[in-house]
Amino acid sequence: MEMLLLALDLAGTFVFALSGATAGVQNRLDLFGVLVLSFAAGNAGGIARDLLIGATPPAAISNWHYLAVSLLAGTVAFWRPIIIERLRNPVLLFDAAGLGLFAVAGTQKALVFGLNPVMAAPLGMLTGIGGGIARDLLLTEVPTVLRAEVYAIAALAGAAVVVIGSALHLPATAITLSGAVLCFGLRFMAMRWGWHLPIAGDPEQPATPAPKDHKDDNARGL
Amino acid sequence: MEMLLLALDLAGTFVFALSGATAGVQNRLDLFGVLVLSFAAGNAGGIARDLLIGATPPAAISNWHYLAVSLLAGTVAFWRPIIIERLRNPVLLFDAAGLGLFAVAGTQKALVFGLNPVMAAPLGMLTGIGGGIARDLLLTEVPTVLRAEVYAIAALAGAAVVVIGSALHLPATAITLSGAVLCFGLRFMAMRWGWHLPIAGDPEQPATPAPKDHKDDNARGL
Amino acid sequence: MEMLLLALDLAGTFVFALSGATAGVQNRLDLFGVLVLSFAAGNAGGIARDLLIGATPPAAISNWHYLAVSLLAGTVAFWRPIIIERLRNPVLLFDAAGLGLFAVAGTQKALVFGLNPVMAAPLGMLTGIGGGIARDLLLTEVPTVLRAEVYAIAALAGAAVVVIGSALHLPATAITLSGAVLCFGLRFMAMRWGWHLPIAGDPEQPATPAPKDHKDDNARGL
Repeated sequence: MEMLLLALDLAGTFVFALSGATAGVQNRLDLFGVLVLSFAAGNAGGIARDLLIGATPPAAISNWHYLAVSLLAGTVAFWRPIIIERLRNPVLLFDAAGLGLFAVAGTQKALVFGLNPVMAAPLGMLTGIGGGIARDLLLTEVPTVLRAEVYAIAALAGAAVVVIGSALHLPATAITLSGAVLCFGLRFMAMRWGWHLPIAGDPEQPATPAPKDHKDDNARGL
Repeated sequence: MEMLLLALDLAGTFVFALSGATAGVQNRLDLFGVLVLSFAAGNAGGIARDLLIGATPPAAISNWHYLAVSLLAGTVAFWRPIIIERLRNPVLLFDAAGLGLFAVAGTQKALVFGLNPVMAAPLGMLTGIGGGIARDLLLTEVPTVLRAEVYAIAALAGAAVVVIGSALHLPATAITLSGAVLCFGLRFMAMRWGWHLPIAGDPEQPATPAPKDHKDDNARGL
Repeated sequence: MEMLLLALDLAGTFVFALSGATAGVQNRLDLFGVLVLSFAAGNAGGIARDLLIGATPPAAISNWHYLAVSLLAGTVAFWRPIIIERLRNPVLLFDAAGLGLFAVAGTQKALVFGLNPVMAAPLGMLTGIGGGIARDLLLTEVPTVLRAEVYAIAALAGAAVVVIGSALHLPATAITLSGAVLCFGLRFMAMRWGWHLPIAGDPEQPATPAPKDHKDDNARGL
């Protein structure tokens, strides 16, 4: 179980690192810059969570596997961008899976460290979206998660399942799975149907899907 | 007294969160983005201070009241921007009051955690200005506090009063009040008279008020 | 020895603070903004390292000397930019020396705090490059270290010497000196010969020096 969780965590890191590396390649960073973007996109969420809950040094710093996986993703994206391009659809699915995994794992870690349950869910969400925010800020772009689609909300929903299930003393494996699956499902459907949150100043905007705007901003470059 | 301080702290958080939410609305973020901006503008200063002095988890993370107040401010700004517009002048006053309160409260917390007094004042100032810096960076703008007016200096002056008063063992209530009032007063007069700090490369710029430039950059959007 | 290290550390802080202050002046920040940039450029790398390894409060916060040195550099750059201009070449040398010093000192501190040796080297590198990244992000520019030249790599090479030497139980003074000298030498030669890392999408770019592009982006403004 422990090994499985670590493997899933590293898989999520790899996919997020790919998104960072791809954004770095598109912005014509040099090899070092691409690798920094990979590490930041793959690990900034978990690092921010660990700093905030007082779990220092963060797992991504104390355990070298996260760095190795991030560098691997960055190297692939740098030298073989064509592979990423071909894998576009699978990578989007992995990204949604990584989001779900990070959200539930982040929430559980926050609960283990004694955080208030109300705050554990946002911290789980932060674990999922923090990497994308760091990636965008390093490229001086407004984080796409702040203005696009159902991405953070999916992570928050998955995190909420863990918090509620934990408060009800349901079995840990079941609530972890349920939360991750809910997040993945919401994210998948949002991509499939182009769901958006309301934007300020658009009172007439339909709550239903905006059919023409399927562009997936959160998965930019993937 | 404890309750009063918490109430004042939450009031300051609310006002700063309003400034973040309003900036988010103006940048056409979606609802989630506006709420993130609210939380960041209301709490980033205190979170940065707590991380730097080793007070983990930060108060804004361990206590859910800060999140609730921030979300309330964000929701109001998102759904009823007209209210914010009408309250423009009161909100500017609250912003100055929040600045004074955050600066003195931040300084005191740093002193309680055993920080060097010389560094406690900048940390108090950081508590006051950190939220605005986070708000601007998330929107990829150069933080207005770095180039506009007497804002950070007012916070620093209030913080210095606390440090000096504490070194002289003056009564805590008196120095807290004096520091907050000094910061509020300086900020208020700076807004009233358009005071600026010198800008590099402008050796001839008068040290006295620049009468035409009353625009209040720090309170952007309020 | 202790005193010598502190003196060298403060010298590195001073030089990095100069780079921040100069960038602030060029972006027409006010005096306060220039001083913030000075402090950020001089200390953000060390602060990030200390937060990540759990050494709170960070040295730059608990010890007021770092603030004083940063403010001194900022004041000089603000009031006497002509001095910086004249010292351009010496400052570039000091910058390379500061990089080497920060990289080895940061690596050693990470090892002392029990970090995995594989991660101690990147943390040493972060100590050296973090200030420049903070400086650029505050000015909403993509960090130059992500797309320019051999800068971070030189820091990483110096850090690696410390990690390897430490694993082999070589004398601390010797490995510290070797690491710093290696970093300085690599950086100096990269400036001298215009070395670059490969950039994505430029498969034909020669690995040898690009003779016309001697512009030193990392030392922007110095």
